[in-house]
Amino acid sequence: MSTIEIKTPYLLFLGDAEDFLMAKVAKGIHYWRPEKCLGQMRLPQAKVDLGLTEMTIQQAADAGAKTFVLGLAPIGGTLPANWIGLLIEAMEAGMDIASGLHMRLNDIPDLVTVAKRTGQQLIDVRHYKGQLECGTGLPRSGQRLLAVGSDCCVGKMFTTLAIHKAMQERGIKATFRATGQTGILIEGSGIPIDAIISDFTAGAIEGLTPANDEDHWDVIEGQGSLFHPAYAGVSLGLLHGAQADVLILCHEAGRTQMDLMEGYAIPEFDDLIRVNLEMGRMTNPNIRLGGIALNTSSLSDDEAHSLMQDYATRYGVPVVDPVRTGVDAIVDALEATQ
Amino acid sequence: MSTIEIKTPYLLFLGDAEDFLMAKVAKGIHYWRPEKCLGQMRLPQAKVDLGLTEMTIQQAADAGAKTFVLGLAPIGGTLPANWIGLLIEAMEAGMDIASGLHMRLNDIPDLVTVAKRTGQQLIDVRHYKGQLECGTGLPRSGQRLLAVGSDCCVGKMFTTLAIHKAMQERGIKATFRATGQTGILIEGSGIPIDAIISDFTAGAIEGLTPANDEDHWDVIEGQGSLFHPAYAGVSLGLLHGAQADVLILCHEAGRTQMDLMEGYAIPEFDDLIRVNLEMGRMTNPNIRLGGIALNTSSLSDDEAHSLMQDYATRYGVPVVDPVRTGVDAIVDALEATQ
Repeated sequence: MSTIEIKTPYLLFLGDAEDFLMAKVAKGIHYWRPEKCLGQMRLPQAKVDLGLTEMTIQQAADAGAKTFVLGLAPIGGTLPANWIGLLIEAMEAGMDIASGLHMRLNDIPDLVTVAKRTGQQLIDVRHYKGQLECGTGLPRSGQRLLAVGSDCCVGKMFTTLAIHKAMQERGIKATFRATGQTGILIEGSGIPIDAIISDFTAGAIEGLTPANDEDHWDVIEGQGSLFHPAYAGVSLGLLHGAQADVLILCHEAGRTQMDLMEGYAIPEFDDLIRVNLEMGRMTNPNIRLGGIALNTSSLSDDEAHSLMQDYATRYGVPVVDPVRTGVDAIVDALEATQ
Repeated sequence: MSTIEIKTPYLLFLGDAEDFLMAKVAKGIHYWRPEKCLGQMRLPQAKVDLGLTEMTIQQAADAGAKTFVLGLAPIGGTLPANWIGLLIEAMEAGMDIASGLHMRLNDIPDLVTVAKRTGQQLIDVRHYKGQLECGTGLPRSGQRLLAVGSDCCVGKMFTTLAIHKAMQERGIKATFRATGQTGILIEGSGIPIDAIISDFTAGAIEGLTPANDEDHWDVIEGQGSLFHPAYAGVSLGLLHGAQADVLILCHEAGRTQMDLMEGYAIPEFDDLIRVNLEMGRMTNPNIRLGGIALNTSSLSDDEAHSLMQDYATRYGVPVVDPVRTGVDAIVDALEATQ
């Protein structure tokens, strides 16, 4: 078992991004891991600025940058010819290339040729070519927390990154375990769990979150939802492989229909919690709900706090909005039950 | 979406198989699809005989054989050099090669070279390179039956092949939909669902079992178990993608521990049925249990019938052993409820 590993520090490439929606991966990397970001590089048309030192490829390489990170999608979806030239220049200067694009850098012959000649890596974080093993379901030491969701894109990555950060600030031993492309670029390691052969889903997560000190927390990024008609299999493999001790349920307040899934309502919280715990119990009988994380950005402050209070009363766990309230209440409760 | 498609008729290669355990795939093909088997080919050391016409490669090609089927595992696990020569000879004679081996024929340069030159296909049925799409969860016409299991290797393929055969004998419109390598070699088409990228599991099954006449049955081979710590994600994607109207629960009587899974007991039937129906209901609210298929080979006739009667009383559905009793009781009940 191996994971994707990306060398740091990074030169973050912002391309011609017109706004942070286009460069949200780069923004996420800088927000969560500023210490990994040596500088930024922008094309003249770019309208975004992370406030990092502006560097050319050569300046970044001279300053020790190890990876040129494509943290955005190019306009139009295909890689512009002048970007390919930059990627070649970066490899010539001694940097690996890490990309979160759907298209594979490893499918572009010119890049593959230069990678072979220079010995640099083309790391497509949406794709996975490493060794995989099937799950064993055997118990292992250490504590594991997993985010589960009512749907895709409800804040699972943000929530787990925030919990990991809060744990680190308190001196709790913790590792963020990335399972999606943005999380992998942020952390610099991980496995894109939706991009591996289905037989190995649980085994890949077992490998990503190996036995550890009893007081160490693996904080595992979740994917999809057990109730999602396209991706539930991925979520279940992730849940089983994680053998999670603690689940954090993530949801976007106000969302009633699954994103892009015609006819699929967001399930009831009672069902979400019950089914996730029941399925998770198969590989960890001691699994428990450790909190609820809501994205309440569509609500007023009063509405948000009222909703969080309702859920807290109903389910007996801390309820937070990682942006509005932070996640301390969840980490407090985890510390109190150790 | 495309499936693996294997041209018929077959020349079944039995190699040097010493017994039918080694040649069980070939035996299964001949048992279920004799009309697809033009002849057999054996090496001098072989001790098994399917009773098919003995043919050389050239004789088979002259008689119209379209695919040379490797329906066994070579002794030692690697492909003997003289087998490679036979595969080349078969391609030269105008046959595709279909293999259920773990190793990929497409990884053997000599074979790839000849395949390119002759225009023949090297079909590794454990691997899948076709186009895939994510699931939609949208309703579609036609009836679908899916085998679900208490574990791996409990008779799901045998049960669905038997139900499909019984339906055909009654003139019911039905198609067997293979999801594993042996099933694909038997049927000549299908998708190896455990060998595709996890994101596409449900979508691949949607594609394998498209909209059909309202009175047509897709009889879908199941895989794994929702309770299996390594493979449950595959089983859930299969269940969701199938949008099954009817589940048939398969189990080997007397098995109490999951195969090769230390510490994992076979779940209770109540839980197996309840959880499969609950998870299946997410994409088909009308899903129902249509029967139970037991492998009772370890029991006496009296014991087997007593056990089947017990389950039938308890769950209110037909209970069969496809070998001992046949599956007519299940098909009778399906016909009665249409």
